[in-house]
Amino acid sequence: MALTVDTMNQQVVKAEYAVRGRLPMRAAEIRAELAKGSASYPFDELVFCNIGNPQSVGMVPLTFNREVLALLMAPHLLEKGEAMVSAGLMSAEAVARAREYQSKGANVGAYTDSIGFSFVRDEVCDMLEARDGHRVNPLHIFLTNGASEGVRLMMTALGASHLGGKVGVMTPIPQYPLYSALTTLIDGELVGYYLDEAEGWAISEEALRQSHAKATAEGVQVRALVVINPGNPSGANLDAATLEMVAKFAHEKGLVLMADEVYQENVFTDHPFVSLSRVVRELGLPVEIASMHSLSKGFLGECGVRGGYAVFENFDEGVLAQFVKMKSIELCSNTVGQLSVGLMVRPPTADAKPLYDQEVADVLAGLRERADILTKTMNSLDGISMPPIGGAMYAFPQVTLPPGAQKAADAQGVPADEFYCMQALENTGLVVVPGSGFQQQPGTFHFRTTFLPQPTAKMEKALGAFASFHNDFMAKHA
Amino acid sequence: MALTVDTMNQQVVKAEYAVRGRLPMRAAEIRAELAKGSASYPFDELVFCNIGNPQSVGMVPLTFNREVLALLMAPHLLEKGEAMVSAGLMSAEAVARAREYQSKGANVGAYTDSIGFSFVRDEVCDMLEARDGHRVNPLHIFLTNGASEGVRLMMTALGASHLGGKVGVMTPIPQYPLYSALTTLIDGELVGYYLDEAEGWAISEEALRQSHAKATAEGVQVRALVVINPGNPSGANLDAATLEMVAKFAHEKGLVLMADEVYQENVFTDHPFVSLSRVVRELGLPVEIASMHSLSKGFLGECGVRGGYAVFENFDEGVLAQFVKMKSIELCSNTVGQLSVGLMVRPPTADAKPLYDQEVADVLAGLRERADILTKTMNSLDGISMPPIGGAMYAFPQVTLPPGAQKAADAQGVPADEFYCMQALENTGLVVVPGSGFQQQPGTFHFRTTFLPQPTAKMEKALGAFASFHNDFMAKHA
Repeated sequence: MALTVDTMNQQVVKAEYAVRGRLPMRAAEIRAELAKGSASYPFDELVFCNIGNPQSVGMVPLTFNREVLALLMAPHLLEKGEAMVSAGLMSAEAVARAREYQSKGANVGAYTDSIGFSFVRDEVCDMLEARDGHRVNPLHIFLTNGASEGVRLMMTALGASHLGGKVGVMTPIPQYPLYSALTTLIDGELVGYYLDEAEGWAISEEALRQSHAKATAEGVQVRALVVINPGNPSGANLDAATLEMVAKFAHEKGLVLMADEVYQENVFTDHPFVSLSRVVRELGLPVEIASMHSLSKGFLGECGVRGGYAVFENFDEGVLAQFVKMKSIELCSNTVGQLSVGLMVRPPTADAKPLYDQEVADVLAGLRERADILTKTMNSLDGISMPPIGGAMYAFPQVTLPPGAQKAADAQGVPADEFYCMQALENTGLVVVPGSGFQQQPGTFHFRTTFLPQPTAKMEKALGAFASFHNDFMAKHA
Repeated sequence: MALTVDTMNQQVVKAEYAVRGRLPMRAAEIRAELAKGSASYPFDELVFCNIGNPQSVGMVPLTFNREVLALLMAPHLLEKGEAMVSAGLMSAEAVARAREYQSKGANVGAYTDSIGFSFVRDEVCDMLEARDGHRVNPLHIFLTNGASEGVRLMMTALGASHLGGKVGVMTPIPQYPLYSALTTLIDGELVGYYLDEAEGWAISEEALRQSHAKATAEGVQVRALVVINPGNPSGANLDAATLEMVAKFAHEKGLVLMADEVYQENVFTDHPFVSLSRVVRELGLPVEIASMHSLSKGFLGECGVRGGYAVFENFDEGVLAQFVKMKSIELCSNTVGQLSVGLMVRPPTADAKPLYDQEVADVLAGLRERADILTKTMNSLDGISMPPIGGAMYAFPQVTLPPGAQKAADAQGVPADEFYCMQALENTGLVVVPGSGFQQQPGTFHFRTTFLPQPTAKMEKALGAFASFHNDFMAKHA
């Protein structure tokens, strides 16, 4: 073999990505068995709470957005727009928007500028101005294949081995494993800072300072600070005071801020979502900040389309030119994703508005309802606790595992939380991800669960089964 | 600044990507000036022969493919499929195919398996079997965001700095700059082998051996060999004997083969396209081969959709598992691109077939017509020569520049071929890319041009202006 695991890129080999790890692989096996009827389980179907993939578990796409995309996909339909409206196949507004985009150069089949359609970037500018009260330069907005691509771009740029010492990336613990995986790929060091579980997974200044000081003392060149807000997997919606503290800390230490704000529309607290970009600007700090957003979450849930954007503020223009070059090497992001970003940031205002508003309200109400049921169920169980869910699509409950569980896990050679989650899967069909995939305070155990599966009754039933399982598990391994 | 060009990833800074370099940037300026009427040029419009972006210069997408995609994009239209067929808005076959894909799980809005929809990978298997007479394992087929992503995956895996010495990637010269850029990004060494211009840009065994021996003597760990067939920018369609020689050489030297075969439908020779995978298999060699294909070329030209696939044959299963992990970190390729791959490899056979066949025939006939005109024009000019175009969408004519041209270029501090191409742009509106962006034999000058712009009369007119310019240029700088 010319290429083996030993002779390939060792950073790839070392990278871990738990969201698609052993648990979901076992779930895929069970699903196949259930479909074939080749094995029996104490449940009829799996309930997938392991991944933020809303449309795979019942979320319905927004009609207006999909109509516009269908028309741009088939220009011969757009030519017959009036007939389609008359036949009740389309809203007039969808036809109008598709024609507007077409007139601005929305050709689905052609490469776009490396950083994306300029008219979509202008629409993002408008949305950001309405949200934050400030107009960014549209040349600082890059349309990407999901938020992940923006993060990869930023992390690749940070991977400067010539400076000596490992490049450190400060990341919340628990963290979304994209960050640990990409840090490993650039041969960097994940400099974790623990979120404060007792304070609803807030960021504490003390935790930032401790983590930075420790890494620096070990020779790590700490260069960036990741903030995931609302939090994945924490489910926290950070307040303005916390974000101000974070921005000042980044300024003091000369760090690039990475603001992962893909859940900005998924908020359950009394205080609204506040962007880190707005905080940085209002404090007048020259801190470099890359802010990422995505189609995949919010009330769109368009994971499969792969669209999103990154905004680079306060960056050196020479560095930005390098970002453009990086984008150009892969030509451009997919056009359907780019156009979907335009639709995300500019909702309909005419005949498509009533249905759109109703669809959005239904999605958000369903999420809130299931978040409440999840929180109540978890906090009703002995040995499980979690703070209220402030935002995003996740909870990260803590499980106090009895000594027998650790022993049983050791016997199988797996982490105790993975053992627990695997047992939950085999007994209830509920698929969740062990906390070890996201990292956690040593000696504590958690799991990440979404509250996405629809209808709500399905999730309620799965949680009922889970509650019984949990009580049996605790008794059995006490 | 926390991040400057000096403190960022130096491999990114060193990477070059000429296809979107100074020439197209100047062209973009001119286009903006022409649109505003703020400057005058000896032409009314630019003719973009600088990039393989067919739908930006007149290629029309295939109706059947776009109908299926529009229906999957807007499932409420698919529900009304019969009504749409009756109203003449869709072919019945498009509705049937969309329903078939939907029943197999084609949910545009959800993440798919990391390597893509299994039913699309099965369709790719069917196509490969019909083409090559052998069935590959569908788990060895990865659906990607264009061919570029497959190349990036493969190159990332090859970047094994722990082995000592630079990782060498053998690449044809002239080469598509994706390869040089990605080689730089992995801190590898581009080990160029010169294509034989006198033999219509064929690969000679001598060139392979010389290049491998030289790199090895310099301490480079040569690990892979790239074959672009049909060639970009060379325009060659390699014959089976050449491919056999290449496969045997890769086997002898223990190299991974990378077969960039995105132009396999764009063939102008008497002999058909032959896949390197087929050659490797028929020789019975255990050589690892990654073969890439794309939606962006052929008769689809769906560049903006970003779809393609990579087939990994004879690879170690442990390495393949690492490839799956790499794909999973970015979740999956965009679903529209994935579905478009299915449509590419499985054309319609019922009521959509006549229109589809006509559209394909028109595209291919237009390409052949313009290839002929281009070849004739170029070979009619003193100081320009090129072999017949065997395949792909490009020609790479050689220009014998007079001494005065080199002097004038030196005065501006640009390569002589860039000076020539820039003068052509300013005088004729024809946008081509200087050969230095693709590399070439020292002391020779070339440029790459497509033959995509439609209608043919537009390209004819631009070539007429170019011929006059060329004769003037040669006289002026003699």
